[in-house]
Amino acid sequence: MEQEMYFEDFYPGQKFESETYRVTAKEIIAFGEQYDPQPFHIDEAAGKNSFFSGLAASGWLTAAIVMRLRVASIRVAGGMIGAGVEEMRWTQPVRPNDRLRTQSEILEVRRSAHRPNYGVIRSRTTVFNQNDEVVMRSVVSWLAPLRQP
Amino acid sequence: MEQEMYFEDFYPGQKFESETYRVTAKEIIAFGEQYDPQPFHIDEAAGKNSFFSGLAASGWLTAAIVMRLRVASIRVAGGMIGAGVEEMRWTQPVRPNDRLRTQSEILEVRRSAHRPNYGVIRSRTTVFNQNDEVVMRSVVSWLAPLRQP
Repeated sequence: MEQEMYFEDFYPGQKFESETYRVTAKEIIAFGEQYDPQPFHIDEAAGKNSFFSGLAASGWLTAAIVMRLRVASIRVAGGMIGAGVEEMRWTQPVRPNDRLRTQSEILEVRRSAHRPNYGVIRSRTTVFNQNDEVVMRSVVSWLAPLRQP
Repeated sequence: MEQEMYFEDFYPGQKFESETYRVTAKEIIAFGEQYDPQPFHIDEAAGKNSFFSGLAASGWLTAAIVMRLRVASIRVAGGMIGAGVEEMRWTQPVRPNDRLRTQSEILEVRRSAHRPNYGVIRSRTTVFNQNDEVVMRSVVSWLAPLRQP
């Protein structure tokens, strides 16, 4: 188990690589039925005649998987508390049996103006499939506690 | 069932209200275990000693629920195809038994530069709990097909 990281441990240019996550048709359909019930997210046949030309994961499922990969690859002390998303783009459909992985790069670190015991870490995450195609990009910020407040 | 909407049906200032969605502790924990396995999203007792002072929904669960409410309240012909997120902020924790609802306002409509049969709809969504507190804000864009391409 990697050591937990504090604000002082992050610096611009720092990079983190995740493990891979295999997305199944079952997971795509289960998530679609619960949170994004549109034909191309819940039915293979209906997906064929849609914008996506086949079953595709909801972009919000991809975002959720990315959170899982990010949390496992960047171990913030006390947990990763999201401060906000600046940008998120879905650049390619995610299909059944795709294997996703993330690369995250720290863009900026600064003390929090409102929370004296925390800093804000701004990062870019790029999400690749098994063919090294980019399927999603995002810029998100999260809080990290100060080791020495 | 409401009529499906095309690009021509959207205009700046147009508003959409969703139904409400009740979030349960069971759903918070199940989503947390699958996609955001951090103590404050999966365990009531551990949550008490965390940043959130109790069990709180993953922000990505809130985002997924918001997609469900948005899809049900804005019926785009052929489905709502996300083009991207410009901004997303979580402003209050979402707790077990919160009842969430969304208000969406169309900010801008324009033809797609890359897809001649589609337009891009830019919108702001504000998410309220049962006490009318704002728990999340976002600005997202999606594609809508032209009725008369």
